[in-house]
Amino acid sequence: MNSVSIVGVGLIGGSFALALREAGFEGRIIGVSSQPAIDAALALGVIDETLPLAEAAAVSDLIYLAQPIERILQTLGAIDALVRPGTLITDAGSTKVAIVTRAAGAVHRGRFIGGHPMAGKESRGVEQADADLFRGRPYILTGRAPELESWIERIGARLVVMTAEEHDRLVAVTSHLPQLISTALASVIGAQPDAAKVAGPAAVDLTRLALSPYEIWRDIFATNADSVDSAMGAFIAKLEELRSSLRSPEMEHAFEEATTAAKALRR
Amino acid sequence: MNSVSIVGVGLIGGSFALALREAGFEGRIIGVSSQPAIDAALALGVIDETLPLAEAAAVSDLIYLAQPIERILQTLGAIDALVRPGTLITDAGSTKVAIVTRAAGAVHRGRFIGGHPMAGKESRGVEQADADLFRGRPYILTGRAPELESWIERIGARLVVMTAEEHDRLVAVTSHLPQLISTALASVIGAQPDAAKVAGPAAVDLTRLALSPYEIWRDIFATNADSVDSAMGAFIAKLEELRSSLRSPEMEHAFEEATTAAKALRR
Repeated sequence: MNSVSIVGVGLIGGSFALALREAGFEGRIIGVSSQPAIDAALALGVIDETLPLAEAAAVSDLIYLAQPIERILQTLGAIDALVRPGTLITDAGSTKVAIVTRAAGAVHRGRFIGGHPMAGKESRGVEQADADLFRGRPYILTGRAPELESWIERIGARLVVMTAEEHDRLVAVTSHLPQLISTALASVIGAQPDAAKVAGPAAVDLTRLALSPYEIWRDIFATNADSVDSAMGAFIAKLEELRSSLRSPEMEHAFEEATTAAKALRR
Repeated sequence: MNSVSIVGVGLIGGSFALALREAGFEGRIIGVSSQPAIDAALALGVIDETLPLAEAAAVSDLIYLAQPIERILQTLGAIDALVRPGTLITDAGSTKVAIVTRAAGAVHRGRFIGGHPMAGKESRGVEQADADLFRGRPYILTGRAPELESWIERIGARLVVMTAEEHDRLVAVTSHLPQLISTALASVIGAQPDAAKVAGPAAVDLTRLALSPYEIWRDIFATNADSVDSAMGAFIAKLEELRSSLRSPEMEHAFEEATTAAKALRR
């Protein structure tokens, strides 16, 4: 792998570039992004150079799509004609079924493997890029690609291979549901004028995700609505079960079950 | 105020003792608790001495009940006969209506003011006691008591005075609801065998409260079930609203509303 193009040089794309370099990648790192992002990325040394997408695609061994989901879907419709045969294309979008489905119909000269690093920050932009962003975090791939897998391991991430369908069903529960829970809780607390007077660490921690900007979530909900709907249904059913157990010894069993699950998440 | 009895020398009672001392209290601090707690508290210098409840009550200007809620209710039934007329009695229980109601019927020689410091740790016991536990945190009182208020301010807490009813209604939303949300989310995640493989920081943060032991929650739910039920109802209604907006531009408004509320909590 001698040359990599990062398409969308923000927090994730920029962090992947920095992580590759820190892990010993010695080839070219080409950025394809908006002019302000390119200017910042060049100034910070995150990328080596910039090219238009067509020229970058023609000289790259790996093309890393780190755009918003809707932009990834658009890029997939255009990029196959631009790459050399066999070029590996991957992405970092937060849902996988829509992207993998689009790639199956659009990518024939290149090889597409969907990806999703489970990492992020509250702030966005290449200025926040961090070579250690992926360290210790799951990095999901929707298929096998040995040259990409070895770099994922070298940047310190935990490689997980699963289907796009399984990914979307699981992240609906572990990521999209928590976001909606935090948003709903912040609204309910906000509807009580004096709640802030008594709010302790529990309320502050559980409303942190509610600070996330909607623009990254629009595409996630649009491309994973069925799984998110199911996850919300299961969660509401569990809450109703707890609600009916407030005065019952059943609640102790529910706490034990939840503690076991919360500990398992931390192993 | 020359002498204070701490009844129940655990995390909260022990921290109040340490905080008083650090804030310049020079009188006696008497501990009333189980033998292991007393042994640890004496060894750590958290209390000066120990006495049986009857003797401690008879010599104290302030009696600080930091037991579990059910034990506070029991102590309130016994303590009034033991105190000197006018002795100030307060508590640190997590719900207030049941305790204030019991005190109204049982405390006549003494003066009772309910209290609730919005502070805690994941680990319990006097070994975890910390003079700075209350610093910057809300400390609710259900009435006025100038000598207690001045110490609450001197230990660095933010004094908030409200009725027991208002307290219980608000903490149902800011504390008891977050606990049940975390418990329910951990259960739903735990029901997906491979969820831990893809869990990122959102899932880990939102299931932290699910590690809390049930024993402190049993009494809270038993004494605040109606307000908790209402809070859960409002939260489920908001979640159902979001669920029906997954593909709709309404979601953007919901995110903006929640972000505003989450920011207000942090001011």
